[in-house]
Amino acid sequence: MNLDLALRMCESAIKEARRLGALISVAVVDAGGHLLAFQRMDGADIAGPELAPAKAYTAVALRAATADLAPLVAPRGELYGLASGRFVCVAGGIPLWNAETVVGGVGVSGGTPAQDVACAGLAATLWEDPF
Amino acid sequence: MNLDLALRMCESAIKEARRLGALISVAVVDAGGHLLAFQRMDGADIAGPELAPAKAYTAVALRAATADLAPLVAPRGELYGLASGRFVCVAGGIPLWNAETVVGGVGVSGGTPAQDVACAGLAATLWEDPF
Amino acid sequence: MNLDLALRMCESAIKEARRLGALISVAVVDAGGHLLAFQRMDGADIAGPELAPAKAYTAVALRAATADLAPLVAPRGELYGLASGRFVCVAGGIPLWNAETVVGGVGVSGGTPAQDVACAGLAATLWEDPF
Amino acid sequence: MNLDLALRMCESAIKEARRLGALISVAVVDAGGHLLAFQRMDGADIAGPELAPAKAYTAVALRAATADLAPLVAPRGELYGLASGRFVCVAGGIPLWNAETVVGGVGVSGGTPAQDVACAGLAATLWEDPF
Repeated sequence: MNLDLALRMCESAIKEARRLGALISVAVVDAGGHLLAFQRMDGADIAGPELAPAKAYTAVALRAATADLAPLVAPRGELYGLASGRFVCVAGGIPLWNAETVVGGVGVSGGTPAQDVACAGLAATLWEDPF
Repeated sequence: MNLDLALRMCESAIKEARRLGALISVAVVDAGGHLLAFQRMDGADIAGPELAPAKAYTAVALRAATADLAPLVAPRGELYGLASGRFVCVAGGIPLWNAETVVGGVGVSGGTPAQDVACAGLAATLWEDPF
Repeated sequence: MNLDLALRMCESAIKEARRLGALISVAVVDAGGHLLAFQRMDGADIAGPELAPAKAYTAVALRAATADLAPLVAPRGELYGLASGRFVCVAGGIPLWNAETVVGGVGVSGGTPAQDVACAGLAATLWEDPF
Repeated sequence: MNLDLALRMCESAIKEARRLGALISVAVVDAGGHLLAFQRMDGADIAGPELAPAKAYTAVALRAATADLAPLVAPRGELYGLASGRFVCVAGGIPLWNAETVVGGVGVSGGTPAQDVACAGLAATLWEDPF
């Protein structure tokens, strides 16, 4: 991961948000879950700076898309209780893989869950195919 | 509890993880819930340093295997609301008993719940039968 | 404040950091102290994501450059005790004024205090003279 | 960094502590500041699990030995106020460098500052000269 790629990921997520009519925040973190880049669209809610980095961190820390974690942390799910503290298991966080290793993550917040996932997914494609 | 035993517990848990093809973190805590030893396998997720010690602490603090606590902290369970803050009631934490007294705990994170329980269980047998 | 200006502020701070040979993180926040944009240079320390947004928040919350707050929060200073929790009173945070109103802030971390202040100052000039 | 090296660092620090008659905790973290290995000697204080990992994290996050940070965070120091929250700027934390990059850190707590530094230093030499 590097800043240049992180910035292009943010731009890609925001471009998709504009297409969908959503107002989002987008965060890109490194393999340690630490923020590399963050952008909040004009008019997007102030929860974004809390949630977008937290979704990206969670995707890295638990090595899973936060959308896939959501059912696991629900009552009677096998990770119930984990959705507290630093882990935000709400759709919109996606880990970036290099073979077996998670090298970073992207998190989007502000739209509907489907919109957040779509925007984060677009950003993630830049990692999967940086050329 | 002592460091030598704690280290052998960590090794035992990791050996079982290798056998199961899991990448785990393992923590051993004393009767006060304070960390004695911790080891994270190469490639294991960065949630491990958060969750393995927390599971071990929770097992000591609530004097129960965290897997057994899970239904109690779910909605309508008699400990509902407890699965937040320091208590992590996800499978993988096991208390170590000396008759009626909890003298320590072991916590494993990184595999599936069944894998975490298996690895923690192997480590716990060293306490139950240190010879 | 808006995202476009926040991004140009980040670029300006990073350009100055390159000129000075510093590796920095830069954050721009709105009038509520909430993050609008953040960028961490490749190789900059992982304290940056903690400190740059905190300096920008502190500059907005206390309506002062964090460098000016430092003596006030020291022992016998009139704000002694404030330099804890969310307030980071270390040089590098600058409030952005519109007449009597603070409309945002910029925070830089990673270089020496003088470098951080220089980079934040360059970014702040874009607000003072956006044309 | 990897677990095998982290374990040898822990052993090295504890061996030095025994020689000095100190009772310590030792932590080794990765480039993201996340715990790889931790060991607490029998009889060492329960502050160790809090302080040793925090010193190692701080050394990585601020890319400096915590002993060198101590005067900077003292009153009238240029980083005064930073010694709160996650940053522990007390002697005993050492960053591990690979050329210009910090790839991990070691933290020791429990002895005198000089003892902590000596034990962490011994551990760090294993990184500098792993052969």
